[in-house]
Amino acid sequence: MKLNIAVLPGDGIGPEVTNQAVKALKAIASEFNHDFKFTTADVGAIAIDKHNDPLPEETLDLCKSTDAILFGAIGHPKYDNDPSAKVRPEQGLLKLRKELGLYANIRPVKAYQTLLDKSPLKKHIIEGTDISIYRELTGGIYFGEKQLSEDGNVASDLCAYSKAEIERIAHLAFQAAQNRSHKVTLVDKANVLETSRLWRKVVTEIAKQYKDVKLDFLFVDNAAMQMILNPKQFDVILTENMFGDIISDEASVIGGSIGLLASASVGDKYAMFEPIHGSYPQAKGKGIANPIASILSAAMLLEHFGLYNEAELVNLAVEKSLKLNISTPDINAKYDNVTTGKVGEFIEDFI
Amino acid sequence: MKLNIAVLPGDGIGPEVTNQAVKALKAIASEFNHDFKFTTADVGAIAIDKHNDPLPEETLDLCKSTDAILFGAIGHPKYDNDPSAKVRPEQGLLKLRKELGLYANIRPVKAYQTLLDKSPLKKHIIEGTDISIYRELTGGIYFGEKQLSEDGNVASDLCAYSKAEIERIAHLAFQAAQNRSHKVTLVDKANVLETSRLWRKVVTEIAKQYKDVKLDFLFVDNAAMQMILNPKQFDVILTENMFGDIISDEASVIGGSIGLLASASVGDKYAMFEPIHGSYPQAKGKGIANPIASILSAAMLLEHFGLYNEAELVNLAVEKSLKLNISTPDINAKYDNVTTGKVGEFIEDFI
Ligand SMILES: CC(C)[C@H](C(=O)O)[C@@H](O)C(=O)O
Ligand SMILES: CC(C)[C@H](C(=O)O)[C@@H](O)C(=O)O
Repeated sequence: MKLNIAVLPGDGIGPEVTNQAVKALKAIASEFNHDFKFTTADVGAIAIDKHNDPLPEETLDLCKSTDAILFGAIGHPKYDNDPSAKVRPEQGLLKLRKELGLYANIRPVKAYQTLLDKSPLKKHIIEGTDISIYRELTGGIYFGEKQLSEDGNVASDLCAYSKAEIERIAHLAFQAAQNRSHKVTLVDKANVLETSRLWRKVVTEIAKQYKDVKLDFLFVDNAAMQMILNPKQFDVILTENMFGDIISDEASVIGGSIGLLASASVGDKYAMFEPIHGSYPQAKGKGIANPIASILSAAMLLEHFGLYNEAELVNLAVEKSLKLNISTPDINAKYDNVTTGKVGEFIEDFI
Repeated sequence: MKLNIAVLPGDGIGPEVTNQAVKALKAIASEFNHDFKFTTADVGAIAIDKHNDPLPEETLDLCKSTDAILFGAIGHPKYDNDPSAKVRPEQGLLKLRKELGLYANIRPVKAYQTLLDKSPLKKHIIEGTDISIYRELTGGIYFGEKQLSEDGNVASDLCAYSKAEIERIAHLAFQAAQNRSHKVTLVDKANVLETSRLWRKVVTEIAKQYKDVKLDFLFVDNAAMQMILNPKQFDVILTENMFGDIISDEASVIGGSIGLLASASVGDKYAMFEPIHGSYPQAKGKGIANPIASILSAAMLLEHFGLYNEAELVNLAVEKSLKLNISTPDINAKYDNVTTGKVGEFIEDFI
């Protein structure tokens, strides 16, 4: 297969982890005789520094002309504590999601057998957990109108959702459940929010088309609790943008490290693959960043194009590395000198 | 001391747990020679059934004429799955908060030594945790304008905050930190939301008046993760309404049961005390509801009026009951026949 892949390493540890994912993809290409072409472009704080724009025109153009995007991470502390900054790295990511119509962010959460002891949660709580979170990614309070009064004393953010926005991701979630354990849990706050009531109504309607899938509902506050009390109860979780952001980061504790969690952001035309962790600037260049989330994102990319054996091999390589303790310090209790690059090389060689 | 206390038992397990709290308060009154007068009124689903109004005029009047309010829980499943219901139990609670100006919801989260094994989290993670969450309670997306388009296809909720709304709760949070471990963590989503940026700006400004308190910031997605990875890092958490709802329910897993968590909702004129758990309708009347959260809410009430020895005695009684396994099944591995009432009686007798 021929694939043009845009690589957007971004900020902080983004470049070093993305490098390892590219290595893995190159190994797959040579092993399976595929033709993968990689083109790199700037996004985030580095793009602001270089082009004064977190998502330069040429980056967006590149993304629109490739088959898939491999994304690193963005964000830099110099913007976080400056509430008056007009340009921020995050705008690059948000604009990318919106412009490419990446409305569904899919985040698998699994408890790896070899890492059960790494989680802050007890083993019997997490063992066997296998969740797929479907987070709406181009609507809600992230993209609603933002206002700040002239005198700077009143601020507002609008959370809006249309029926069509809810429907398209709901279908994806139900279809995923059909290939999994046949359960969708809608997470909302329907006892307070009008948007949540629309979600509940639309999703209930759509559920009728998927008779083999059980639909249930959970208020977001309760869901945040249930995720820790009994994560095994979940199969597919469907939720809106902001709740999905919170719940999926929370769920990352199950795996023992946020450095393990991959995600796919898909729309009708484009698809982007990225670790769910941030740019983690304190770790930049130290070789301690875990590349597994990025490598597993590459596996999701392969799967997206139907390259199941290839994806399987990457997953296998990852599991092997975990078993052999060829892991970065965040999950390695035995050796503290395994670098980001070493993990990447092992995976590359294994493939 | 003479205190008029309004008792609003509400729905589900509300009445049975509130009963035990009243017992404890009566025991305190007789032991310390106080004069506590209790008046009961309807709120929530039961008030809809009886008066077609989740917060009848007379209930509100009563609350406004008493010194403090003891609240049970509200909510009924028949409303949750009916997105078109015009009247809902939750409206009663929200209106009460708004009408009484209860802008700060204070939720203490502690790991009880005797219950360390009950938590889904590992012992070394939670041991020593002592957090006080300050959640803004009368603003944000809970109370912003809600809209549903004529054709029912687009819904929206507005999240708005003013400087003044942020300031008043921020002062309370910093003052609390001065009597604790001198740290306030502001939880927001300043990389995306305009309201969060206003929070960050206003709180940073106020921090200058509290030089002995350290202020730091955490994005809500990261906070949801950190709460589980390392809850001991927190002292006072300050946050807006919706994020506070999610984060505090999540934090309840630290204590081993949501049935242990009390809260105080205070404003400039009124104060209300309630367990953070919901109405848990499936448990209603079975005698399995844990009354501790409600009893600890009564202790917060006593503290609010400067009755520190009295509050201390209630806390002591609770700790004793936990130590002796005089607890409801949610936290009792040894005996499964200790009812809500039995726990209440023990606490009463102990006092
Ligand atoms: C960087 C930030 C804007 C982003 C989000 O909130 O969506 C991140 O947290 C994520 O989850 O991908
Ligand atoms: C019942 C509901 C409206 C309420 C809220 O969301 O505030 C509850 O969850 C709480 O936290 O007190």
